[in-house]
Amino acid sequence: MRKEFRDLAEPETVAELISDLDIGGGTEDVPLTEARGRVLAERIDADLDVPGFDRSNVDGYAVRAKDTFGASEGDPVELEQVGRVDAGERPDVSVESGTVVEIATGGVVPPGADAVVMVERTSRENNTVTVRTSVAPGDSIMVAGADVAAGQRTLGPDTELTSREIGLLSALGLDSVPVRAEPTVGILSTGDELVAPGETLDSDAGQIYDVNSHTIAASVAEAGGDPEVYPIVGDDFEAMKRVLTDAATDSDLVLTSGSTSAGAADHIYQLIDDHGELLRHGVAVKPGKPMLVGRFEATPYIGLPGFPVSALTIFRHFVAPKIRDAAGKPPRKREQISGEMAVTERYKEGRTRLMPVGLVEDGDGNLLVYPVDKGSGATTSLVDADGIVELAPETEQLDTGQEVTVTLFSADVRPPGLLGIGEDDPLLSRLLDKLDAPRYLPLGSREGLRRLRNGIPDVAVAAGPTEREVAAVELGGWSREWGLLVPAGNPEDITSIADVVDDSLRLVNRGRQSGLRASFDAAIEDLAQQRGTDQSALTDAINGYTLTAQAYESPPRRVLAGKADAGLGLRATADRLDMGFVSLGTQSVGVLAAPDRVEKPGVAALEALLSEDDSATDLAGVTLSD
Amino acid sequence: MRKEFRDLAEPETVAELISDLDIGGGTEDVPLTEARGRVLAERIDADLDVPGFDRSNVDGYAVRAKDTFGASEGDPVELEQVGRVDAGERPDVSVESGTVVEIATGGVVPPGADAVVMVERTSRENNTVTVRTSVAPGDSIMVAGADVAAGQRTLGPDTELTSREIGLLSALGLDSVPVRAEPTVGILSTGDELVAPGETLDSDAGQIYDVNSHTIAASVAEAGGDPEVYPIVGDDFEAMKRVLTDAATDSDLVLTSGSTSAGAADHIYQLIDDHGELLRHGVAVKPGKPMLVGRFEATPYIGLPGFPVSALTIFRHFVAPKIRDAAGKPPRKREQISGEMAVTERYKEGRTRLMPVGLVEDGDGNLLVYPVDKGSGATTSLVDADGIVELAPETEQLDTGQEVTVTLFSADVRPPGLLGIGEDDPLLSRLLDKLDAPRYLPLGSREGLRRLRNGIPDVAVAAGPTEREVAAVELGGWSREWGLLVPAGNPEDITSIADVVDDSLRLVNRGRQSGLRASFDAAIEDLAQQRGTDQSALTDAINGYTLTAQAYESPPRRVLAGKADAGLGLRATADRLDMGFVSLGTQSVGVLAAPDRVEKPGVAALEALLSEDDSATDLAGVTLSD
Repeated sequence: MRKEFRDLAEPETVAELISDLDIGGGTEDVPLTEARGRVLAERIDADLDVPGFDRSNVDGYAVRAKDTFGASEGDPVELEQVGRVDAGERPDVSVESGTVVEIATGGVVPPGADAVVMVERTSRENNTVTVRTSVAPGDSIMVAGADVAAGQRTLGPDTELTSREIGLLSALGLDSVPVRAEPTVGILSTGDELVAPGETLDSDAGQIYDVNSHTIAASVAEAGGDPEVYPIVGDDFEAMKRVLTDAATDSDLVLTSGSTSAGAADHIYQLIDDHGELLRHGVAVKPGKPMLVGRFEATPYIGLPGFPVSALTIFRHFVAPKIRDAAGKPPRKREQISGEMAVTERYKEGRTRLMPVGLVEDGDGNLLVYPVDKGSGATTSLVDADGIVELAPETEQLDTGQEVTVTLFSADVRPPGLLGIGEDDPLLSRLLDKLDAPRYLPLGSREGLRRLRNGIPDVAVAAGPTEREVAAVELGGWSREWGLLVPAGNPEDITSIADVVDDSLRLVNRGRQSGLRASFDAAIEDLAQQRGTDQSALTDAINGYTLTAQAYESPPRRVLAGKADAGLGLRATADRLDMGFVSLGTQSVGVLAAPDRVEKPGVAALEALLSEDDSATDLAGVTLSD
Repeated sequence: MRKEFRDLAEPETVAELISDLDIGGGTEDVPLTEARGRVLAERIDADLDVPGFDRSNVDGYAVRAKDTFGASEGDPVELEQVGRVDAGERPDVSVESGTVVEIATGGVVPPGADAVVMVERTSRENNTVTVRTSVAPGDSIMVAGADVAAGQRTLGPDTELTSREIGLLSALGLDSVPVRAEPTVGILSTGDELVAPGETLDSDAGQIYDVNSHTIAASVAEAGGDPEVYPIVGDDFEAMKRVLTDAATDSDLVLTSGSTSAGAADHIYQLIDDHGELLRHGVAVKPGKPMLVGRFEATPYIGLPGFPVSALTIFRHFVAPKIRDAAGKPPRKREQISGEMAVTERYKEGRTRLMPVGLVEDGDGNLLVYPVDKGSGATTSLVDADGIVELAPETEQLDTGQEVTVTLFSADVRPPGLLGIGEDDPLLSRLLDKLDAPRYLPLGSREGLRRLRNGIPDVAVAAGPTEREVAAVELGGWSREWGLLVPAGNPEDITSIADVVDDSLRLVNRGRQSGLRASFDAAIEDLAQQRGTDQSALTDAINGYTLTAQAYESPPRRVLAGKADAGLGLRATADRLDMGFVSLGTQSVGVLAAPDRVEKPGVAALEALLSEDDSATDLAGVTLSD
């Protein structure tokens, strides 16, 4: 089996090691049109004056200022217009004493003139211009070089180019600029179980889609690097060596992630050992223990954990700053905010912990922080978290209400407009689509109510016979028909719950958190009472009673895949998937809000949606109750 | 001349009008590899369970939990290993009572097993596995769909895709996603005076480089739109009609900027009037009065002011939010911070004012705010400002120390590491390159000292004979040789300042703010005393004494262009430009810090640079003094 890592490095040691790696650092010229987001490789000095001529700032008349001295509304002077200069035109006339030249904004101030009078302070009849104000030399003129002067330092090295800098570079006439090359980062996912998105998955053979390649590639781009995703490599030593060699040849940095398969991990380890140098193996951070830092041939190499959340967390914490630095970008402004723990958490193991957390505002606008971790390998944690709380190794507990500092994933992260937890439901999904930035965790009715009681979500959604021992305001609800989903045509001719008990049909059930399961169990209890037996006798007789699936489409999809004869589910789902449906009853779904959160805009918006008269129509036959 | 706008709309009216424009809104499928930064067009429901099988979370042994009940370190149970499942492998064996199957992390839990024992709690000899702990059903297994269940709502419509969402989409096996189409924005700069960057400029004909096309294009991209820059159009009605028609045909929104030439402005006005609808003309905002809102044919049209800072300010305030909205992006989190006015400002005109400001931290870390506006048409204001202070029309004055709210140009904006104002100098430019995010305004020695006295910059840089009536700490300095720069070979054989006075040579001088000018004036005063005349007699005799340029390379560049015989400047510049040099003296350059800012990291870093022993070598013969 895989090697054990006994000598875990301190996070600071690993950060230093990575900081010392030499990745990239070249420069290249890019067209100005592609320069946005890039970083200047060198100082840009102006090579010309901007403007390149004495320019009129207004529409008016170029004059000799002396000719206007003493002029006023009551005592104007009359001067003779001898010509006109438009913008983009070479003056073909000079201004002599007693004369003026009409000039447009942006025009070249003609020889002899030293000021411009705004048109608003003049009037003209034929060639006689009446000037009703006096001007001083220089008035309404931007002299050559006043904006940018030749030789002036305009932008320093390492300046990140936004629209504003691109404007200034345009003014200097540059159509290309020298920028720092983006470090090229080769990305490899390893593992026999991985399949690229878009390809066909064989779940029975334990295949899963490769998450890390695209996640890390997007993260590399976010950090200013140029990602290159290499083919997934499995457990074949020679293939891995070949791809690793390719990546190391063409990249400034190589990142691998995975593999959870022991063979691949050992191969990587051996390849780095044979063809490069292993600088570190293992870091005392949770998640992320199995991290490698080294070189393959001469190319810096970092091995990330296989689980996506771990891989991304380690990438953000240790690798992204290095890529930003190599790209010449300043360290990202760490957006940190304070919040209160919504729950109490206890910890063991003396490792620095980078804990993904979600945020929610309570009714008073205070920020609550709750841990987001469905545990090993969950990809939903990627989007259910808003940031990281970093905990020192010695932290053993965080108490409810304790203040913690959250490092947001980006400056744009905001708490969700609504946080809901509870039953999954197709109508609910559509309601959520109409809200601004909702977050919904479909953990089931029971879990929703439990967490509502603990003060985390704004609303819980509960279906079926639930024990609602929680103070809550019911915002509204609807009812839904539930039963057994069977293949189209109902080949097993199932008509009631009794058939499932008696005919040893293969069932897919829902988990105990689900309101569907609660109604199903209640129906079995009824049947048991009718038959004068106890519930467990019946459930023991059901083939698959303990085989549970997590959301409303999972059981029918197993039926469709031929792995079961019937799945617990909704009529709406049967209709959607063109399946047979054996109705077992109707249950209500209620949306319950925490009493202190009913004024939150997201909660109020959900309540408004629930009370809209036309919702029922909108919802394909589902009847809104309440 | 151009039409006057008498009926200025309130900013709110214009914002509403723009908000009601219909720009874009289509959807398109993009590969996952190009999805970063895009916005989902629709909800993404899971089409499969993730994982698609019951997966082991650890390396260990798949067991029947019942077989381990009662097992402990002191009282282990022995079970028979009957096979092995790796990740990505279909199990070829079942777990019966009394047997185990070795399993790798990520492996498919084989039929019959309902738990996995971690390898750390076991040992093995041949096929006998000793289990030293008891496990419950489900332990160390992630059941199918526990991460994402089929049918589950995973991402809502209008979700902006970052690396995290891309990770989740990968897990669902999607290799392309439906996203909101980026609104295409056609961009036209109008004006006979405009030349595209990279092309040759004829300054004498009043030409300037087109700044707005690239600035607005980059800003459109920043807002989530897809910019398309059209050719610059001048004062030709038919050409303008043709390009405007092209842009309107291919774009969701057309933006023009300029023109400062009256003809072009009138043409645009007429074209919109003839071929579309003019909804608004003029807005009561400074800058930005001459703004147009309407339609050309059926395509929404907005006309921006011509001056770059005005155009960008109006774009950011009125247009960017609309493009973001059309791209499906949420309103940008307005990054606002509070600061104290560093100066007193008075205002007239009853218009809403969007005042560009710069930021600087004082010695105590307080944020000071100062207006940045070199006035009409300056492009340097684009990069010298950090944000905008919005002032109500009735605001007549802001006092020094008054608190104002600054809307930053982006969340990443930080105050400069060092703010310096004063003399321009080539050595100084190189020193600045070594600092972190410095900002330097080359306004001359006198202006630097004046502003230092007013409490704005961290340091002033002063050269030559200056009146230093300001409390300051001298951080260091250097000396520089100054004189007259002449064509290579010195064809006019200039040897002293007297030649310029006596030979009616054409001179280019520097402005009164410059330390070079101060030394030059002192030298003329000396000559006047020698000759027993007064200074003005000599300066009147100099052809071009009043012709001033703004930075150290401007005068010699006029000489190189054949427009002058001699320019005031530095020996270093003469060397760089391969010109002749007539030395007139040596002057010292001093770097003076505000006493309360010497501890600022940027100031301390500059002081350290100034005292480095090897600076002199580094600086091409310039001697560091102090």
